[in-house]
Amino acid sequence: MSSAVHSTEEYDMDIRSLSSSHRHPQDAPYVHKVGLPPKQNLFKEFKATVKETFFADDPLRSFKDQPRSKKFILGLQAIFPILEWGRSYSFAKFRGDLIAGLTIASLCIPQDIGYAKLANLDPQYGLYSSFVPPLIYAFMGSSRDIAIGPVAVVSLLLGTLLQSEIADPVANAAEYRRLAFTATFFAGITQVTLGFLRLGFLIDFLSHAAIVGFMGGAAITIALQQLKGFLGIKKFTKKTDIVSVMHSVFASAHHGWNWQTIVMGVSLLSFLLFAKYIGKKNKKLFWVPAIAPLISVILSTFFVYITRADKDGVQIVKHIEKGINPSSVNQIYFSGDHMLKGVRIGIVAAMIALTEAIAIGRTFAAMKDYQLDGNKEMVALGAMNIVGSMTSCYVATGSFSRSAVNFMSGCQTAVSNIVMSIVVFLTLQFITPLFKYTPSAVLSAIIISAVIGLVDYDAAYLIWKIDKFDFVACMGAFFGVVFVSVEIGLLIAVSISFFKLLLQVTRPRTAILGKLPRTAVYRNILQYPEATKVPGVLIVRVDSAIYFSNSNYIKERILRWLIDEEELVNKSGQPKIQFLIVEMSPVTDIDTSGIHALEELYRSLQKREIQLILANPGPVVIDKLHASDFAQLIGEDKIFLTVANAVAACSPKLMVEVV
Amino acid sequence: MSSAVHSTEEYDMDIRSLSSSHRHPQDAPYVHKVGLPPKQNLFKEFKATVKETFFADDPLRSFKDQPRSKKFILGLQAIFPILEWGRSYSFAKFRGDLIAGLTIASLCIPQDIGYAKLANLDPQYGLYSSFVPPLIYAFMGSSRDIAIGPVAVVSLLLGTLLQSEIADPVANAAEYRRLAFTATFFAGITQVTLGFLRLGFLIDFLSHAAIVGFMGGAAITIALQQLKGFLGIKKFTKKTDIVSVMHSVFASAHHGWNWQTIVMGVSLLSFLLFAKYIGKKNKKLFWVPAIAPLISVILSTFFVYITRADKDGVQIVKHIEKGINPSSVNQIYFSGDHMLKGVRIGIVAAMIALTEAIAIGRTFAAMKDYQLDGNKEMVALGAMNIVGSMTSCYVATGSFSRSAVNFMSGCQTAVSNIVMSIVVFLTLQFITPLFKYTPSAVLSAIIISAVIGLVDYDAAYLIWKIDKFDFVACMGAFFGVVFVSVEIGLLIAVSISFFKLLLQVTRPRTAILGKLPRTAVYRNILQYPEATKVPGVLIVRVDSAIYFSNSNYIKERILRWLIDEEELVNKSGQPKIQFLIVEMSPVTDIDTSGIHALEELYRSLQKREIQLILANPGPVVIDKLHASDFAQLIGEDKIFLTVANAVAACSPKLMVEVV
Repeated sequence: MSSAVHSTEEYDMDIRSLSSSHRHPQDAPYVHKVGLPPKQNLFKEFKATVKETFFADDPLRSFKDQPRSKKFILGLQAIFPILEWGRSYSFAKFRGDLIAGLTIASLCIPQDIGYAKLANLDPQYGLYSSFVPPLIYAFMGSSRDIAIGPVAVVSLLLGTLLQSEIADPVANAAEYRRLAFTATFFAGITQVTLGFLRLGFLIDFLSHAAIVGFMGGAAITIALQQLKGFLGIKKFTKKTDIVSVMHSVFASAHHGWNWQTIVMGVSLLSFLLFAKYIGKKNKKLFWVPAIAPLISVILSTFFVYITRADKDGVQIVKHIEKGINPSSVNQIYFSGDHMLKGVRIGIVAAMIALTEAIAIGRTFAAMKDYQLDGNKEMVALGAMNIVGSMTSCYVATGSFSRSAVNFMSGCQTAVSNIVMSIVVFLTLQFITPLFKYTPSAVLSAIIISAVIGLVDYDAAYLIWKIDKFDFVACMGAFFGVVFVSVEIGLLIAVSISFFKLLLQVTRPRTAILGKLPRTAVYRNILQYPEATKVPGVLIVRVDSAIYFSNSNYIKERILRWLIDEEELVNKSGQPKIQFLIVEMSPVTDIDTSGIHALEELYRSLQKREIQLILANPGPVVIDKLHASDFAQLIGEDKIFLTVANAVAACSPKLMVEVV
Repeated sequence: MSSAVHSTEEYDMDIRSLSSSHRHPQDAPYVHKVGLPPKQNLFKEFKATVKETFFADDPLRSFKDQPRSKKFILGLQAIFPILEWGRSYSFAKFRGDLIAGLTIASLCIPQDIGYAKLANLDPQYGLYSSFVPPLIYAFMGSSRDIAIGPVAVVSLLLGTLLQSEIADPVANAAEYRRLAFTATFFAGITQVTLGFLRLGFLIDFLSHAAIVGFMGGAAITIALQQLKGFLGIKKFTKKTDIVSVMHSVFASAHHGWNWQTIVMGVSLLSFLLFAKYIGKKNKKLFWVPAIAPLISVILSTFFVYITRADKDGVQIVKHIEKGINPSSVNQIYFSGDHMLKGVRIGIVAAMIALTEAIAIGRTFAAMKDYQLDGNKEMVALGAMNIVGSMTSCYVATGSFSRSAVNFMSGCQTAVSNIVMSIVVFLTLQFITPLFKYTPSAVLSAIIISAVIGLVDYDAAYLIWKIDKFDFVACMGAFFGVVFVSVEIGLLIAVSISFFKLLLQVTRPRTAILGKLPRTAVYRNILQYPEATKVPGVLIVRVDSAIYFSNSNYIKERILRWLIDEEELVNKSGQPKIQFLIVEMSPVTDIDTSGIHALEELYRSLQKREIQLILANPGPVVIDKLHASDFAQLIGEDKIFLTVANAVAACSPKLMVEVV
């Protein structure tokens, strides 16, 4: 501890140089007092808390100081943003939207047919879900770039959850479909409710790392499911875990694989992946991967039609119902056991759908620098799912892949969704019979090439680099999905995320501070090895609000620092610790348990003849220290504005013994 | 904002005076660089986290650098602390323990009989639970002041929970008792497990405020239950909520009240309360309230015996089984549905019992300044309940009231528990028949006077003064217990506590900083109204680790501060904001979501031509900023040690436009 001894000389100098830095060098060091914030009345305080919790984004800002008629218009515009941006809509913008809309339509049609299968529904329900929901969203949503429709992960999740309630989706097709609409309805209700009650922050509880892992796992699971169509297997497991699927695949290797299907699948997948590669290499050719799926559908359908390969065992779509969405209002269960199941499934699907849509919305909003109100988005997404559930749609949300294509194709507003919706309408009305000979293999290939992008190695590597704990959450979610099921993966992701938060509030960090040479700044000695401790003084910083969940730990941790330090001091024969300075800058709040812990700390220190000194308590904390009379207990003069001031105040008493 | 304008002059001066404070006044201002902590390897980091989470109190400290034989002895002493303190036990200490032991024995015998009734068990089970568990605890526990035995709140809780499973404790007495032992067994298992896995911090999740409310509510509920014995009512509701109880009381007012019982009850209660008052007034007379219950039992029993008041409808104890605890090993359910019920009830009872015992242990340990290892205590308490469940005891724990008496009677070690245990043993062996004529009214009076102290107005008032949110939790728990049930009260307490923690991690505080006049210190302008903003610079402090749960909020909140400030600046015609300094001192950690949020913030600011500057990131944060290449993105030279340094670095660029 030679550096500590050395610092004894520096110490004195720095205190003096600190004081001379003020404009009255002849005076005693100027010590600024710790401020007491102005008293707030209870109601105001409560209002401020509620505002920060639920209206952190200040959604009513534009309503302030406006006449009533204006407020009404603003209110309408808040619910239907199209009324706002529609007024400045121009032909130039429409050109962008038209091209983008046509591009995403060509991408969504084959995807929709495949995704419907993931949800164990007939292909037309995928198309239905790309017709009504995007229209509703275009009127109510505020994202300019999101592309609405069924997405792979939600389809898989919905399919898994529904199948766990209704074992055989083929035999009980009507019942299964009714439950799907019920779940969709309640997913919409959940989303609207969350948005309306401004509880949107709840989706933030799924951490980025957990989402990366979950999405990657879901993508692998979805790709594995496609092996059925890809290899032309007829008997396939209903489970989604990798072990069951691989078992199913290899058990049917002898007689269940269809070589014609495999040849077709492999060549189509190669074509799609090559198109993706081109799009990645040259950003200007982004439209190549976007229209490749449609081209491969057309080509392969035509090929099957002329070769009649379906007679050789190549599975085909066979039949897609013609015409637009029939009403499904009377199919939703509004009572009984099935309703409860629908509610449960709906809530889970709603949360995942929201997570995906809000993440997309925020990403593109940040890129184009416009504000997105998460809660308003939820209301829009929820409304679209409620209407959707009444028009034979299942849960729709924003799609990662299609939104990216939408953005790159130059979409300007949600009108691109309207264009896509119209194309899907025309398809449903006129073209569906043409899909009869579309082979299942092409759909499988399209889905594989679409979900493969969800496995985000780079993000996983970055997470590994930044935060090991996050990586555990990420991998937990990933392996949970791949080896067990989508639900378990989700549960693991949420549990690990929560555990981390609990750790944060039970085991906050503390640090020993030392003085940086040539400054009056005190910093963590682990981060700044050149920082020196002040002899006779132990300076501890507490890095969290002191609440019931950690107050006891903090007290004991500080005492342990003290014991460690005293041992060290005894060994090296330095002056005894006489002052314990607790740097409170990061302590943003304290509750009754925290005050108790401080009192116990104070009494323990008293027994050891060590003075407790506080540095820089924040507004809330100083207020509570006074309210609880703790400030009076330790003495008002023991609370300082900065650590440097506190050390300076200790020094005259210390000098006597040190020198 | 005239003060902001005024500060422009000060600003320049202070920067200069700051720089002159260093020892090379002729040089450019000395700027200390932000330190990068030394690289830790992954395993070390993981080990440190695990250690802080589970072994924060460093329980193996004394084992370090010891030979193996010594380690074995230390290990034994760790499990049986009596081996350690027993060696220095002396006659002087025994005198204190003897007096204390006799005093708490006289207090516990009548209390035990009453508490057993709260748990719907025969009176002897209360006495059994004051015989075996204290003995076990004396060998394994490390608190010197705690008095072990059945307590009011746990008895009530156990009674309520058991009764919800077995409707009629009288008709199904044997089954009820078996379930009670099963619950006690699993309560013990829970406690040992928590202690052994060092999960003791879990009990910290019940906040002080919630406990105050819960205890107060339980006390009221218990007192209300005593109205049965106090008024001599025969038909009484089985529910515990105030509405049902009062209904029961007044419905029986016409013919169900027994005036002899009431007279006796009122006079005994007056006597007990008067004794309490004396004890409170004069601390030396603490023994008066301690022996008053026994005296009132003796007097009232004698009185009933000679007047044969039981023939006039005064309820008496009638029969207490003679002899010590019979074995109950074969009565515990180790399988089936009843076991599951036992586990569920046991876990709840274990947590409440631990909360009470640990709180008591800590309080007295702090008073006498010795360390108490919460996890080791849990193992001791659990072991004692496991043994207890096999010897016809129900859940025992540390009692608030008896521990206080124990402390004031001058107990020195856990030997006072052994003394009490011996007295209870003698009572069971020889004296129980004498309790035959003890009136129920005296037991009710004793329980009322005992639990009345659990209603802690002062603590509730202090909580109100310190933290309004805590007060809501306190009142929620209180009214939940009083108006609904013990379980609901507990649930409310835990939920509100959790909600508060979630709020902490989702909505952290942020503050705008200003410069304190005549210093280089930057502080919250709400707390220090004299602090002045630096023109052209916005300084925001984030008061929490940036995690997935709050990263998005923090980003949006900072942008909102910026928008507010820009509006203000535009109105007053001050220079445009060019720099945003984020003071990161309180940001103890950041995860991948947090880094993302910072990146989005950086990009948003870039669009507005505002530079992002970070001040004083901590060791973990700076490490992750580098690992994620965010430091390189914004530029290493944009990260400063202090806000003052950061402002100084902005100033040359600002001066051009300001001047």
